[in-house]
Amino acid sequence: MHIIKAVGKMQDLSSGIRAKGHRIGFVPTMGALHDGHLALLRRCRRDNEVCVLSIFVNPLQFGPNEDYRAYPRRQKQDVSLAKKENVDIIFCPSAGAMYPTASLTSIHVRRLSELLCGRFRPGHFEGVATVVAKLLNAVNPHVLYLGQKDAQQCCVIRQMIQDLNFSVNVKTVATVREKDGLAMSSRNSYLSPAERKKAAFLFRALKAARREIRSGERRADKIIKLIRGIIHKKTSGRIDYVSCVDAQTLAPQQIIKGKTLIALAVHIGRARLIDNIIVVS
Amino acid sequence: MHIIKAVGKMQDLSSGIRAKGHRIGFVPTMGALHDGHLALLRRCRRDNEVCVLSIFVNPLQFGPNEDYRAYPRRQKQDVSLAKKENVDIIFCPSAGAMYPTASLTSIHVRRLSELLCGRFRPGHFEGVATVVAKLLNAVNPHVLYLGQKDAQQCCVIRQMIQDLNFSVNVKTVATVREKDGLAMSSRNSYLSPAERKKAAFLFRALKAARREIRSGERRADKIIKLIRGIIHKKTSGRIDYVSCVDAQTLAPQQIIKGKTLIALAVHIGRARLIDNIIVVS
Repeated sequence: MHIIKAVGKMQDLSSGIRAKGHRIGFVPTMGALHDGHLALLRRCRRDNEVCVLSIFVNPLQFGPNEDYRAYPRRQKQDVSLAKKENVDIIFCPSAGAMYPTASLTSIHVRRLSELLCGRFRPGHFEGVATVVAKLLNAVNPHVLYLGQKDAQQCCVIRQMIQDLNFSVNVKTVATVREKDGLAMSSRNSYLSPAERKKAAFLFRALKAARREIRSGERRADKIIKLIRGIIHKKTSGRIDYVSCVDAQTLAPQQIIKGKTLIALAVHIGRARLIDNIIVVS
Repeated sequence: MHIIKAVGKMQDLSSGIRAKGHRIGFVPTMGALHDGHLALLRRCRRDNEVCVLSIFVNPLQFGPNEDYRAYPRRQKQDVSLAKKENVDIIFCPSAGAMYPTASLTSIHVRRLSELLCGRFRPGHFEGVATVVAKLLNAVNPHVLYLGQKDAQQCCVIRQMIQDLNFSVNVKTVATVREKDGLAMSSRNSYLSPAERKKAAFLFRALKAARREIRSGERRADKIIKLIRGIIHKKTSGRIDYVSCVDAQTLAPQQIIKGKTLIALAVHIGRARLIDNIIVVS
């Protein structure tokens, strides 16, 4: 397994691999790998000759009052997990290598960046789009693997890739959950045991909403009220949003129709948790 | 010579060329080719196995009151000029192919985009950076050739390439001039014969400034006054700006020092003309 820190070296390695006609799959992460990341790596490993994992806690996507410093960093453990998954290359640049002092360029994906989490995390998706463009140009993969848990991130990145003509396929992989349904997240480590237990109600609320829609409910306000009710009753969480939106355009739906993304963001203790499900009706 | 319109086809062609280990040089243009473009093509032809020319009048870099519609389009003549220069591939996508209806992504290079022409053409360099990223991802060249006449554009593109880790070398080629010194530009065709004659004073003013600096003058305000004086006296031009700036950072200089870009933009008749020289002191 190669561990690469320099952008130029990553690019050279990648073009050597491409010259052999091999297919490069790429899983970008911020490290602190959990089973959700491992599911991405396994899919990537299965489908490509070469499997690249990046580990980079991207300062650009954290707001000034967010958890950039606190974000878990477990490089040693990550490397050993990556080895077990037969990752070929770990690309783990320093912040200085990714953002030299005089960095001036940013990428903005209008509309998709401003909805949902974008309302509460100004600049977040600009940071995401910019770093992913940089990572794509460093790794130059054939296929990019993203987790469905970060549904809005998937939308923003897909749109950027399409708009800027990046020549890469995007595969979205289903959310991996704990036994009680909580979506895997590096930020779950912020939860106290009591908070952790209650956090499972986020997914339970989403499932209750799905049952309600399957029973015929189509009014988004009713669905949102149902979810909010469960979260208020069962957790001490502070809700950023609960929304029913078109799964492609992220446009809010008043009447649930087609492919609907039901997404939420809730602060529980020190953790800001997100989760979502897609309902087709 | 291939004439390619589809982004995907251009990408396939490019990766086939790269698989053979051949070096791709790329000259992006808006067409209406003149001797300045031909100098870029010759340099590109000389230094690379494969020479790609793009012709695309990019709507995104024109302001609402600018000359997008009037901009000269001479595809037939351009194709025959390109053939003479032994261009291998002309990439000439339609506006619809480059900007499908739901395009949402833009690239912004802070500071460099806001100075000089950026003050008078808001959004212009965002349009330039965005289209060049798209073209780079379509053509995937080893080397990109840009003309020094568009000095600020060169700065913005170099910065974007560095910041986003695009794996391409940038070569800047000297401005080609008419016999009387007027910088070649597709927009020169807007000038009446009388305007055309007077337009030569833009470069004469820059040369006078250079002489003055070589004679020891270091005060930027004196140099700017000199240039403005000549333009006022000798042309009917309306000046957007005359500036002395650091050639790398484009930061205004009060005392001329190091590598100085002396740049101007002047409206003469229907044409907005730009020109510049670099003085090392």
